[in-house]
Amino acid sequence: MAELSATSGIPVATIKYYLREGLLPAGERSGPNQSLYGPEHLRRLRVIRGLLEVGGLSVAAAHQVIDAIDSDLGLAHTFDIAQRTVSPLIDPATLSADAVAQVDEALSGWHVSPENPGRLAAARVLQTFAELGQPDLSGWVPGYAAAALAVAEADLDEIDVRDDRESKTEMVVIGTVLGDALFAGLRRAAQEHVTSTRYAGGAR
Amino acid sequence: MAELSATSGIPVATIKYYLREGLLPAGERSGPNQSLYGPEHLRRLRVIRGLLEVGGLSVAAAHQVIDAIDSDLGLAHTFDIAQRTVSPLIDPATLSADAVAQVDEALSGWHVSPENPGRLAAARVLQTFAELGQPDLSGWVPGYAAAALAVAEADLDEIDVRDDRESKTEMVVIGTVLGDALFAGLRRAAQEHVTSTRYAGGAR
Repeated sequence: MAELSATSGIPVATIKYYLREGLLPAGERSGPNQSLYGPEHLRRLRVIRGLLEVGGLSVAAAHQVIDAIDSDLGLAHTFDIAQRTVSPLIDPATLSADAVAQVDEALSGWHVSPENPGRLAAARVLQTFAELGQPDLSGWVPGYAAAALAVAEADLDEIDVRDDRESKTEMVVIGTVLGDALFAGLRRAAQEHVTSTRYAGGAR
Repeated sequence: MAELSATSGIPVATIKYYLREGLLPAGERSGPNQSLYGPEHLRRLRVIRGLLEVGGLSVAAAHQVIDAIDSDLGLAHTFDIAQRTVSPLIDPATLSADAVAQVDEALSGWHVSPENPGRLAAARVLQTFAELGQPDLSGWVPGYAAAALAVAEADLDEIDVRDDRESKTEMVVIGTVLGDALFAGLRRAAQEHVTSTRYAGGAR
């Protein structure tokens, strides 16, 4: 374990915590106080850290994602699990009809099931905007929907180029979690670029 | 306060908590056990709830965002505060040169300062991918950068159409926080659409 810690840069106490939580499988017992860890432990360790620290998932949510990687589910089903894990749980009954209608307008022509967690999450966001006195975002949302479609195409392209099922599935779950963080980062960089271009003179 | 709770749908205990934390300004004292709350309290209450519950901010982070709304800062500066609040704090020294180079390639031609929190956050994500054995995302990242630019243009368009400084600033801070959640939701809906289109036969 000392070696695993040195190679991964992850403290022994953290590795023990992941083991206790069942996120990391136990090493092969090689002595009374020693276990063997292989490259698959190192890789899994990094996946766990990526999900918890970069993705900001809870331990329970990381568990579900890792179970999906280890499972034999089809791609659409794996996507579904990854999506539910990283999406807030929303009761459709708590959503306003207006917000749902706004989202469905943005998604018109798409094949999206009513219970898609992203559809509900987007409706919740639009409802919050309305509650904040920002009810009309009809000039803003379509640009988001078009960009989201472009990103989803890029996601599926990246999955399509992968050869084997395991690496496709890994990209589904890692990409679902980390893709949000990547996009949020690039969006902030783009906001600085566009702001500095439009408000070059320090205008307010 | 009972009335404020009834109108907003937010429990009295939660309102008291926001008052204690200094997120919500105190009402005007109108008696030994009574204070007057106006429409500005209602609006602020909803902003707080949106930041904490939908945006997932900590109380301390919500404080910074609300201070920015109440301040007299220029738009670029307000953006900067809103961005720092919702971005993970990253020490550039912990980033690999490879990951930073990958991000800078994606941002080439953009006016982005080296310490932009989004640039650092995106580099951290790409570094995590590399640590997970996914070092080559050169086919994937450019689609994200193009979409992020389109979204940032939509963000600034929406700010530009607003008349007064307060509602511009509100959109900067609320849009920065809630825009991530909106995009993530739309992305998941788009993923279901694209997946169901490409893998219509249940292929893996």
